[in-house]
Amino acid sequence: MKKKIIIDTDPGQDDAVAILLALASPEELEVLGVVAVAGNVGLANNSRNALKVVELSGRTDIPVYAGCARPLRRPLVTAEHVHGDTGLNGPDLPEPAIALQDQHGVDFIIETLLAHEPGTVTLCTLGPLTNIAMALNKAPQIASRIAEIVMMGGAYFEVGNITPAAEFNIYVDPEAADVVMRCGAPITILPLDVTHQVQSTRPRIDALRALGNRSGAAVADMLTFSESFDLEKYGWEGAPLHDPCVTAYLLKPELFEGRLCNVTIETASELTVGMTVADYWHVTDRPRNATFMRNGDAEGFYALLTERLARLP
Amino acid sequence: MKKKIIIDTDPGQDDAVAILLALASPEELEVLGVVAVAGNVGLANNSRNALKVVELSGRTDIPVYAGCARPLRRPLVTAEHVHGDTGLNGPDLPEPAIALQDQHGVDFIIETLLAHEPGTVTLCTLGPLTNIAMALNKAPQIASRIAEIVMMGGAYFEVGNITPAAEFNIYVDPEAADVVMRCGAPITILPLDVTHQVQSTRPRIDALRALGNRSGAAVADMLTFSESFDLEKYGWEGAPLHDPCVTAYLLKPELFEGRLCNVTIETASELTVGMTVADYWHVTDRPRNATFMRNGDAEGFYALLTERLARLP
Amino acid sequence: MKKKIIIDTDPGQDDAVAILLALASPEELEVLGVVAVAGNVGLANNSRNALKVVELSGRTDIPVYAGCARPLRRPLVTAEHVHGDTGLNGPDLPEPAIALQDQHGVDFIIETLLAHEPGTVTLCTLGPLTNIAMALNKAPQIASRIAEIVMMGGAYFEVGNITPAAEFNIYVDPEAADVVMRCGAPITILPLDVTHQVQSTRPRIDALRALGNRSGAAVADMLTFSESFDLEKYGWEGAPLHDPCVTAYLLKPELFEGRLCNVTIETASELTVGMTVADYWHVTDRPRNATFMRNGDAEGFYALLTERLARLP
Amino acid sequence: MKKKIIIDTDPGQDDAVAILLALASPEELEVLGVVAVAGNVGLANNSRNALKVVELSGRTDIPVYAGCARPLRRPLVTAEHVHGDTGLNGPDLPEPAIALQDQHGVDFIIETLLAHEPGTVTLCTLGPLTNIAMALNKAPQIASRIAEIVMMGGAYFEVGNITPAAEFNIYVDPEAADVVMRCGAPITILPLDVTHQVQSTRPRIDALRALGNRSGAAVADMLTFSESFDLEKYGWEGAPLHDPCVTAYLLKPELFEGRLCNVTIETASELTVGMTVADYWHVTDRPRNATFMRNGDAEGFYALLTERLARLP
Repeated sequence: MKKKIIIDTDPGQDDAVAILLALASPEELEVLGVVAVAGNVGLANNSRNALKVVELSGRTDIPVYAGCARPLRRPLVTAEHVHGDTGLNGPDLPEPAIALQDQHGVDFIIETLLAHEPGTVTLCTLGPLTNIAMALNKAPQIASRIAEIVMMGGAYFEVGNITPAAEFNIYVDPEAADVVMRCGAPITILPLDVTHQVQSTRPRIDALRALGNRSGAAVADMLTFSESFDLEKYGWEGAPLHDPCVTAYLLKPELFEGRLCNVTIETASELTVGMTVADYWHVTDRPRNATFMRNGDAEGFYALLTERLARLP
Repeated sequence: MKKKIIIDTDPGQDDAVAILLALASPEELEVLGVVAVAGNVGLANNSRNALKVVELSGRTDIPVYAGCARPLRRPLVTAEHVHGDTGLNGPDLPEPAIALQDQHGVDFIIETLLAHEPGTVTLCTLGPLTNIAMALNKAPQIASRIAEIVMMGGAYFEVGNITPAAEFNIYVDPEAADVVMRCGAPITILPLDVTHQVQSTRPRIDALRALGNRSGAAVADMLTFSESFDLEKYGWEGAPLHDPCVTAYLLKPELFEGRLCNVTIETASELTVGMTVADYWHVTDRPRNATFMRNGDAEGFYALLTERLARLP
Repeated sequence: MKKKIIIDTDPGQDDAVAILLALASPEELEVLGVVAVAGNVGLANNSRNALKVVELSGRTDIPVYAGCARPLRRPLVTAEHVHGDTGLNGPDLPEPAIALQDQHGVDFIIETLLAHEPGTVTLCTLGPLTNIAMALNKAPQIASRIAEIVMMGGAYFEVGNITPAAEFNIYVDPEAADVVMRCGAPITILPLDVTHQVQSTRPRIDALRALGNRSGAAVADMLTFSESFDLEKYGWEGAPLHDPCVTAYLLKPELFEGRLCNVTIETASELTVGMTVADYWHVTDRPRNATFMRNGDAEGFYALLTERLARLP
Repeated sequence: MKKKIIIDTDPGQDDAVAILLALASPEELEVLGVVAVAGNVGLANNSRNALKVVELSGRTDIPVYAGCARPLRRPLVTAEHVHGDTGLNGPDLPEPAIALQDQHGVDFIIETLLAHEPGTVTLCTLGPLTNIAMALNKAPQIASRIAEIVMMGGAYFEVGNITPAAEFNIYVDPEAADVVMRCGAPITILPLDVTHQVQSTRPRIDALRALGNRSGAAVADMLTFSESFDLEKYGWEGAPLHDPCVTAYLLKPELFEGRLCNVTIETASELTVGMTVADYWHVTDRPRNATFMRNGDAEGFYALLTERLARLP
């Protein structure tokens, strides 16, 4: 059965790949809409990037919304040093011909959840969790209607990237992440622990470019651009690939393994703010609110990605 | 010139008096709407109480909205021990015949600010600042259109009531208060420092009851109920009267004196969370973001209140 | 019966007056020793100032010790802007002829408490509580032997001086204050609430100078120097006089009134660190660990001070 | 050249092994003294255990001191669930015939550092850092005289054991750890990242028992007792062996590899308190204050341990 999903995103090269992977899989995933949020870069760029990616996929029927322009209570932190000034540097994508929907992204999330049967809409989050938290705060009754929240965010054994204790998506809006983690809906987390195992090595990027379609070429350009930062930082053979793990999990959950445990967000301390404190060893009595993935099958992941992107224009 | 105001409130006996004082003053104040928020009690009761108060005033043309049911990121704390189980114990008010508007209170605030000329709509906040913060987060462009935020909340020299360091309205949603304090709009705060000076002594309550109208009687019943908690706690001759100071400030600002200074909200520490740290003596370089009132003229205040409530049914 | 006391201090003009008031009262107070601590200025200056003050009093039999040079875990913050570069600017006091004891001040405190009968030695603290906390940490068995800790420090209704939320002595070493507040010994606090009522107006300073002895002249010079900062800040007729309230309380406790309540030290938040959160209205269940003074009799205080200082050389 | 060392410890089975390894290596390590601290169990038990271990080794010439009975500012947390009620359950060791020194352990540390040439005394810390921090606070001039602080404590990629974010030694006294991390002396950390790689599997324990001496048998009994907790928790083939990594590093530093980076201690947040936030990827500008080991050679480590313990009675 097809899963209905909303993609909440701050594209971002890896967000773009995650969106493309979803749009390339219409038999399994029905994308109800794409909602932009401030994160990797500001909301205006992220919204435009979302339009570009949808257009690149050829699926211009997918509605795109702008959500929140800033975190719940902190100044926006962005990551142009990773993603480039537009947030999607790398490929030369045309200005989008399609336009944003008028409705606010937060209201789209609320109305969509209220309009569908409870337990039938999955939220895929690829950026800071501001929009989801705003929707939960504005209409708490949606929490019990969410089928699952599948998020790229956080880290435990890999600890952090934007700071020594925090992964970027959670760090940008830790209070939003905290609201989401405590909302009661089923949550699956694809953290750095997984995404650091799914590395975009040169042969893997080459295989995508070799697909011969515009999507494969664009993705190869994206990853070539965005991986330079991490290659220098970590000294690995490939850069981590983050957000597509969310889509891959929806398509082939068996690629990942992890553990149901408590995950609590650090919000009180400047030093560790944004840390996803996962009680992976069950040393506390805190409620088990999330499936925290620890391992990913990199070969299986890239095989899936390559096979699916081949279907796109 | 008449001031256009939106009243954001969690009624509450003192909220009710503040609303009645505004509705009794149509030459000076045009009430565009009343928006309920969770606070003294839950949102359902607060919303019903708002309807009751509007109906009591005879101004059933005023639209009433329900806003947010819980704080931005904390569990709701309520104060039935002060306000009674309905939040408005004391008078025997009929179930309201008028109904809530369909629109969400947060959207009403946003749309109203966008529909009026910048600088013409004042937000009067009598409860936790959740709705205002949600509106600012959802539509940051409204900040520059707010004429003024006049709030009852916080304390400096009187320090706290719900905890030794925090006043109730701020304590319930400190993150929302933080968003509001940093929004850039002009802010005037009527804190416990003022409201503890404006005490509803027995003669003052008797004078309201002696007005002979239903509103005067209801207000006398309200204050008689709600003051019992504070009379026992403080051992004073009258209980503090909080929220009507906001309306009184709009009508006669000369009743109050204070100082423009920085006010920052404590959100990091459990011990002091919700404290309004006012830099009253200017010992820091923090920006001066609020006029923090320190003194109120109790005689003038009760004269105004009594004179105006006499105009109501 | 004479009280045996240890004075722990960071002189400081007001510390100096407190010490002189004690040394001028040998019938009531037996000063076992004076221990310097880093605070108003660094330890070296504070130690030398302690020697100078003891010498000024003519009581060169009183041993003076150097304690800790820095707070338990924070960088030292000093207040040369109030006390001058030496920490005791104002009078022209000669370099001390007497010398510091070899023993570390912390060990003197421990050994003195262990050498005397339990409940017979009172600790008078006029500066940051580093030495006392270090002694309690090194030898926890002393806690039950302390007759009383009488401290100048903290504030509740007056809130703060060095920051909007903290008084200097507590702010400099909040962790030490926390250790002391939880040690179980009887504690009496003379906070800003009291010391702001005991103002060194011009006539009161003149009365001290008119005593005609060198101590009176020196104290008049000290207060004239140190009050300039506060006079400008507060715009009052006299500056607060802090530390002598400790000695005055030992001599005439009836000059002060307050309440036994819980006092907890804020240590977690940068905004409010060092706040003495006094549960003055008993709104929490925290244990009542200190008598927190709220009012002082300024006339009675200055009468006592003037009468006693007249006895000195 | 022999290294002069002070061992600060809360024995603890693994502490005992670390001490024995040092005392078995007199050609390389001159143990100036062993100082007990509260940690795994209370100070009284830890002190007695230190005496027992010294006696077991036959080196009754080594002086043993009791240090601090509690952390700088927190209630003591202990780990009887791991170490047993005595802190050293497992072997049947006789009551010690040797006695504690009279001097306080903190003063022994201070005096020893002041009595030896700067840069010649290494502090080996196997427990909470209370004693070291107290010594640094009481006599800051010792910091520049410390040759190196080699500590077992903390974790980064392994994150925590006593909580999801903190390792036990740091968690028990995070403020002390903070004082030590900022003291300016060279620091080498053997964290869980290393000790989780050095697992006491059954064959390794058997090899120690097969040595045939009383020390080998006692160590085998100790490890058999203490590993049961971790075997159940982690499901590994052997339990981590923590403190002996410190001694092994002193004897054969080439067994370990890591990186000089900033390590900062979390002290502000209850959720993450005691975390050793290691900037392993150099993403901040914080000063590089510690060599944080990440990998250990388990085979080499156990070969060293077995060879050396064979030398003991």
